[in-house]
Amino acid sequence: MGRLEDPVSAKPTILDVARVAGVSKSTVSLVLQKNPIVSEGARSRVLAAIRQVGYVYNRNAANLRQSRSNAIGIVVNDVTNSFFAEMAVGMDMIVQSAGFVQLMAHTGESVERQAEVLSAMLEHGVSGIILSPARGTRAADLKAHMAGPVPIVLAVRDLPGLRATTVVADNRAGSHEAARHLIGLGHCRIAWLGGFPDTSVYQTRLSGLRDAMAEAGLLFEEAYAVESNASRPGGVQAMGRLLDMPGHPMACMCVNDAVAFGACDGLRGAGLEPGRDFAIVGFDDVMGARTAVPALTTVATDPEAVGRRTAQILLHRISSGDVRPETITTPARLVVRASCGEPWSAGPVAAAGAVPEMR
Amino acid sequence: MGRLEDPVSAKPTILDVARVAGVSKSTVSLVLQKNPIVSEGARSRVLAAIRQVGYVYNRNAANLRQSRSNAIGIVVNDVTNSFFAEMAVGMDMIVQSAGFVQLMAHTGESVERQAEVLSAMLEHGVSGIILSPARGTRAADLKAHMAGPVPIVLAVRDLPGLRATTVVADNRAGSHEAARHLIGLGHCRIAWLGGFPDTSVYQTRLSGLRDAMAEAGLLFEEAYAVESNASRPGGVQAMGRLLDMPGHPMACMCVNDAVAFGACDGLRGAGLEPGRDFAIVGFDDVMGARTAVPALTTVATDPEAVGRRTAQILLHRISSGDVRPETITTPARLVVRASCGEPWSAGPVAAAGAVPEMR
Repeated sequence: MGRLEDPVSAKPTILDVARVAGVSKSTVSLVLQKNPIVSEGARSRVLAAIRQVGYVYNRNAANLRQSRSNAIGIVVNDVTNSFFAEMAVGMDMIVQSAGFVQLMAHTGESVERQAEVLSAMLEHGVSGIILSPARGTRAADLKAHMAGPVPIVLAVRDLPGLRATTVVADNRAGSHEAARHLIGLGHCRIAWLGGFPDTSVYQTRLSGLRDAMAEAGLLFEEAYAVESNASRPGGVQAMGRLLDMPGHPMACMCVNDAVAFGACDGLRGAGLEPGRDFAIVGFDDVMGARTAVPALTTVATDPEAVGRRTAQILLHRISSGDVRPETITTPARLVVRASCGEPWSAGPVAAAGAVPEMR
Repeated sequence: MGRLEDPVSAKPTILDVARVAGVSKSTVSLVLQKNPIVSEGARSRVLAAIRQVGYVYNRNAANLRQSRSNAIGIVVNDVTNSFFAEMAVGMDMIVQSAGFVQLMAHTGESVERQAEVLSAMLEHGVSGIILSPARGTRAADLKAHMAGPVPIVLAVRDLPGLRATTVVADNRAGSHEAARHLIGLGHCRIAWLGGFPDTSVYQTRLSGLRDAMAEAGLLFEEAYAVESNASRPGGVQAMGRLLDMPGHPMACMCVNDAVAFGACDGLRGAGLEPGRDFAIVGFDDVMGARTAVPALTTVATDPEAVGRRTAQILLHRISSGDVRPETITTPARLVVRASCGEPWSAGPVAAAGAVPEMR
């Protein structure tokens, strides 16, 4: 696909900028390189002159000369999941304050698209990449990229077998705490809604529920693990399938908050009220969880803080050249709100050990 | 911020790829340029060899030689608003099928950040940009960019006074239809929730409500236009402020669906049920609107379709070099679901002309 060539004579140059700003060509170059040696006054005049003449810094040429760039890539699986959006906002805060611009691409969970996106980012000269691997990514798919000169940090999902710096939430601990909360409320049968088994997030979050139930001498019934897209419509479908099963549990944990919101919709569609007739726990604590009705009990992973932390780690790798892989585990803590209702165990039936049921 | 230099001798070259793939260096080049002349078999061998040796195409050098690139930039205001996420998904479908990668940046409604993001994208050699201007952007802020060699298409929000190709929904018509629906249900007092007056979306969507009320001989009371962030938490706040006003309307239109979801949360927080005690209309018809409870009555702008259409227009500009500005208006149509409840006018009190009230 061709592009119209701009007549070279019409393009404003660095000399035009220098003339309008009343500074030397070298000063303009230093400002373009964000060199702190330039006084604030001169910097403002140069930036104003750049806007006035419409000068575009030829970063391609500059990159070749200097092997520098001012962009960070972030590759996510699903841009419509507010977890990733909030993480991106956190990253952008850090990246921006370091003088970088953040460019986001999404893979839609396709390993092939992920390869195209990573190549394009590297070809366009990003300084570093934060990647949440698509479902089904194998260590071999990323090995060559990891050995390249551009630092790549994995976030959200880890990839066993890959030597990579990885920032993941303590999913198992968070899920374990949530499960213990539901068990403490008297639930001895708990369902699992949403996600697919080929991601580490699904596996670690579900393992916390399984372990907590086993420790309490309870059985997690695999039939009540209902897979679905990790989205609000996915949650509606998953809840619908659960409610169709005879004798289903009246409590569930969800792979993320989007699924939990959908599960609430699904309950209401069936004439049940979340937090009164059915206990729901989400995961992530996205922006809408606190103000939802009922306010969502969820495992907070603080996506914005994860984004900030991951960006800091990447920037450190870029500036230090440090390539030793490390795994950073960020906290995941239960936040109790209203979607699990009142403790059932307060009632006399619980003491008798009957099958629990929400009031 | 410096980056470690990779030893040149260690970097795999195009010759390594050619050797492993068993093809000529020119064939590798043609594959890298996505030239369709190469046979599918040779193409697969080259792509496999690229992965095997970990070759990274030096797009910076290629851009300088060829003035070509394979990336499209998309600049949005708020990545946590699912409208933009869904629009980005639609764009990505088209962009991907044309062999491009989409890189998204967000401005957080900052005009300064918008300038940085646009410059970075141009410097990194994107082939075209789709931009939803930040709040408060003036035509002068974008004039120089519009005159540049890289096509820029405005989406979602137009910018009066700027010669630019713009894709906007027919916001006034959609809002007018929604207001007529509420008036038809018997509401003669309607509030407006969310957004800020310095965007064209706010102005055009509110104007449809104002006009429909005036045509019906009703007065839109400016006190009941409650500004807020166009987000779910913003909607909770706006509804809270509305409910604090004595004698407030029992119907509202919202600047977008996120605000409408928050408004539902705010009603429930105050013990009122949306669709029964209060009529709510959203705008956009995002993914969660249909499955929400109550299912949201909203003005569908089909963000994914808008994304596809905008990407097609941008790709056409890139390939044709056409620079004549045009305005494309996409449809906005009312979708009636459950959030406005039953028609009030069916009751005998309506016929008597009393102040309407939801049943």
